Amino acid sequence: MNASPPGLVFVVSGPSGSGKSTLLRRVLAADSQVCFSVSHTTRAPRAGEVDGRDYWFVDEQAFRERIERGGFLEWAEYGGHLYGTSREAICEPTARGLDVILEVEVQGAAQLRQSLAEAVFVFLIPPSLDVLEQRLRGRGTEDEDVICKRLVRSREEIHLVFEDGDGDSPLGSYEYVIVNDDVDRAVADLLHVVGAARVARQRVVASQRQHFGFD
Amino acid sequence: MNASPPGLVFVVSGPSGSGKSTLLRRVLAADSQVCFSVSHTTRAPRAGEVDGRDYWFVDEQAFRERIERGGFLEWAEYGGHLYGTSREAICEPTARGLDVILEVEVQGAAQLRQSLAEAVFVFLIPPSLDVLEQRLRGRGTEDEDVICKRLVRSREEIHLVFEDGDGDSPLGSYEYVIVNDDVDRAVADLLHVVGAARVARQRVVASQRQHFGFD
Repeated sequence: MNASPPGLVFVVSGPSGSGKSTLLRRVLAADSQVCFSVSHTTRAPRAGEVDGRDYWFVDEQAFRERIERGGFLEWAEYGGHLYGTSREAICEPTARGLDVILEVEVQGAAQLRQSLAEAVFVFLIPPSLDVLEQRLRGRGTEDEDVICKRLVRSREEIHLVFEDGDGDSPLGSYEYVIVNDDVDRAVADLLHVVGAARVARQRVVASQRQHFGFD
Repeated sequence: MNASPPGLVFVVSGPSGSGKSTLLRRVLAADSQVCFSVSHTTRAPRAGEVDGRDYWFVDEQAFRERIERGGFLEWAEYGGHLYGTSREAICEPTARGLDVILEVEVQGAAQLRQSLAEAVFVFLIPPSLDVLEQRLRGRGTEDEDVICKRLVRSREEIHLVFEDGDGDSPLGSYEYVIVNDDVDRAVADLLHVVGAARVARQRVVASQRQHFGFD
């Protein structure tokens, strides 16, 4: 009855080991209106990760050339690797009416707060810091020193988001916090966040005003 | 793992004939964590309506006595009848951790904006004004004069909510607008709104802060 409005943008962040990737794969499978913003990274693919689906895996030179060209909305170094979100990764699908979910590290999300003011920001946390530690060790891909640094940093990130009283955290303000203690539940929570954003008043009014003869 | 926080409050309003009652019955059946705030009214029960479930049906004298006692958070006259929401109808279930949905007329919702600042306000609209007219006539319970008055008023209510640019509408500010063109879809929309409110950052932080050792 009405032209479909441009797609929404959801930024999902959270400490390393909070389970972002698994959550997003499940949400994408459940909602065909949502697509994944594919980030660039210089880190090596993990088992099962596919280039162009999970990340664009590039070498450091290619990554730094893209930075020079202004090709990233955000980029950050994390755990010795570079991660970035290209402008096209967001604009291209939203222009076609698809909602886009970005998975970014916490530093990157803070940068996106500036360039994506309309986006909905979701922070994913593990059920506890002990569980986070178990998950990081369970991967078996990082050495002890890396794991310790990540745990210290994760605790700090969670703390900053929790204490963000006035929405002025240096990590950017998150509208939602999802506890990933049960992945089915966390998937349902994120689908609710997406579904609710689609019926936010100003969005619905923009698409319905003309239909109701208020133009 | 944590004590359950007090329940949330959702105020669902919309023009007469937008389908509020059917929607809410379906949402309640789908989510056992949600309950219905039972309003008082002086209007006669419609076919199938049950006292204490759909409304508390009272006579005008009893209703006015309750007003005198300050027993209503909001009340309004609508279509020649009185409608009101008692304080207990909200506080009693939320104290037990249940989320409460209130179905109120548009005037009543504006009053509740004052007393229930934390509530989530949802405006339900029909797919068009023509459909609204058909629905009101289809009930067969109101005469022509009442139907015409309701249609004029409904258009005005929708217009005020649509044009609420800064959230300062005289009808109160609504966070969400749901178009009731397909009841299954509208039910899903409202369930998303409820589910998203449960993972709003400040709510989750309040229940998790101690668990993460930030107290």
